[in-house]
Amino acid sequence: MSLTVVGSIAFDSVKTPFGERERMLGGSAVHFALAASFFTDVVVVGPVGEDFGDEEIAVLDAHGVDTADIERVPGGETFFWQGHYDHDMNVAHTDDTRLNVFADFEPKLSQNSCESQMLFLGNIQPDLQRGVRRQSSASFAALDSMNLWIDTARDSLVAAIAEVDCLLLNDAELRMLTGEPNLARAARQTLALGPSVVVAKRGEYGALLFSEEGSFAIPGLPLEDVRDPTGAGDSFAGGFLGYLDGVRVRGEHDHRSLRQAMVYGSVMASFNVEDFGTARVAALEEAEIAERLAEFKRLTEFESQSLNA
Amino acid sequence: MSLTVVGSIAFDSVKTPFGERERMLGGSAVHFALAASFFTDVVVVGPVGEDFGDEEIAVLDAHGVDTADIERVPGGETFFWQGHYDHDMNVAHTDDTRLNVFADFEPKLSQNSCESQMLFLGNIQPDLQRGVRRQSSASFAALDSMNLWIDTARDSLVAAIAEVDCLLLNDAELRMLTGEPNLARAARQTLALGPSVVVAKRGEYGALLFSEEGSFAIPGLPLEDVRDPTGAGDSFAGGFLGYLDGVRVRGEHDHRSLRQAMVYGSVMASFNVEDFGTARVAALEEAEIAERLAEFKRLTEFESQSLNA
Repeated sequence: MSLTVVGSIAFDSVKTPFGERERMLGGSAVHFALAASFFTDVVVVGPVGEDFGDEEIAVLDAHGVDTADIERVPGGETFFWQGHYDHDMNVAHTDDTRLNVFADFEPKLSQNSCESQMLFLGNIQPDLQRGVRRQSSASFAALDSMNLWIDTARDSLVAAIAEVDCLLLNDAELRMLTGEPNLARAARQTLALGPSVVVAKRGEYGALLFSEEGSFAIPGLPLEDVRDPTGAGDSFAGGFLGYLDGVRVRGEHDHRSLRQAMVYGSVMASFNVEDFGTARVAALEEAEIAERLAEFKRLTEFESQSLNA
Repeated sequence: MSLTVVGSIAFDSVKTPFGERERMLGGSAVHFALAASFFTDVVVVGPVGEDFGDEEIAVLDAHGVDTADIERVPGGETFFWQGHYDHDMNVAHTDDTRLNVFADFEPKLSQNSCESQMLFLGNIQPDLQRGVRRQSSASFAALDSMNLWIDTARDSLVAAIAEVDCLLLNDAELRMLTGEPNLARAARQTLALGPSVVVAKRGEYGALLFSEEGSFAIPGLPLEDVRDPTGAGDSFAGGFLGYLDGVRVRGEHDHRSLRQAMVYGSVMASFNVEDFGTARVAALEEAEIAERLAEFKRLTEFESQSLNA
């Protein structure tokens, strides 16, 4: 089992009502890889500049993430994002984006990253995502995207979605993609585009999974300490796909494993938001994952006896 | 077992992207009573005008709701609300409110309505809610309110909250009441005001329960047909408290019954929104409730086995 992720590797400067941090390790591929590393072997593909040092690589190394396919661009600078959150932590406000080496990124998979059984296409231009999908021999591919590509490259995005097995988007983006305000209908229309699984991420409200076999919903954990939601969606995807790749040896993805995967995604996202950047997930102990899984169980469990039972 | 509800009885004119209806039977006490009537005996207290006819009373009668305490004001007109919803059905836009007989409402409980073991104070001025609470000998009282009273009568509302066992509010209203943007903290601060149970209603996202014994979260059912969300919160409260009153004969409210009650509240709210006004709940068959309970179970169920199990 192994899982390749292609996406951004970044420095993030973030300010929230609970503090401020400069140039933290971030990016969709990094948040994804750290979360997924608790469940399976992960290979990261993405570009960095000369400002990306051993210290950053060491964070990934410490989790057994394969960093051999991280491409260091001579004379380049790493992708940089600066943003802030007000009291509504569901909404990120971007203050500065410098694509730097990410602007000319043309992902090329190595023999090793091609051969992963599972592929995650982090949020990059959809034609690049399609190029990666064609290079990969993965039997299961998932894709994340964003409002920018729905606005500026909708046809490419729809083509990319048709070529993957699973789409993960925010609920507002699913509505935007389909032009359908009802989420259940939007998800059905998205399934008709090709994927067998559609996941609607809903921030603090949790996440919903739609497939031909039915729907699954998991609420968010009502956390008292939410410091920085940056990367929560990628940590969700990392827990979700990492778990699926980890259990794949036991057979196909049935609806039971998809449900479990949704909970592990939620577990990893819930850790992600508790501290700035990758701090919480990078320092996570395996036992904490089991504890939080039990917390989600306690949060959602009820008896199914009917009135007259 | 019996459950008294004090609140508005209204005519509602509603327009949504899915249609338009004039002067439908509505109001918090009506939506609540119809939903609760599937679980326990319900007594409705509230004022109506001379325009409120036998046809409206018949809808309540058909569900065994005790309408003897509905006060008909000579020469008066029934409370009227007109509103619309755009594609975001979570937000109601008010176009007209005529309080009519509701403006001078001074609730007086009869011997019968005083003696209910459970009391629901629908969304009315908080000093009126306190007056009703004092008249009632209910051993369990719950209260709903709204942003208007948080803005204009905060001290009265806080005093009313201190005198009940359970508070139901929208999540945004809980944040507004406490001035605390984090919902889990807002709920903890609200529990400190007096109630042993706080329920945060979250529209299509579901609902959260907070108590000393822990939290419970139920997501909303992803419905493809949402025609009119008016009254969904009151239908939720009706299913929630109706179930609790119905099982009360079996003992105190433990956390297990509170969880079940949250699911029955969600079941009744999910029916409420599927058609205009009270149409769907008024025509509901008991078997549909059991079916939808099973749907909620399928939607939320997952195994709790940990990674190494």
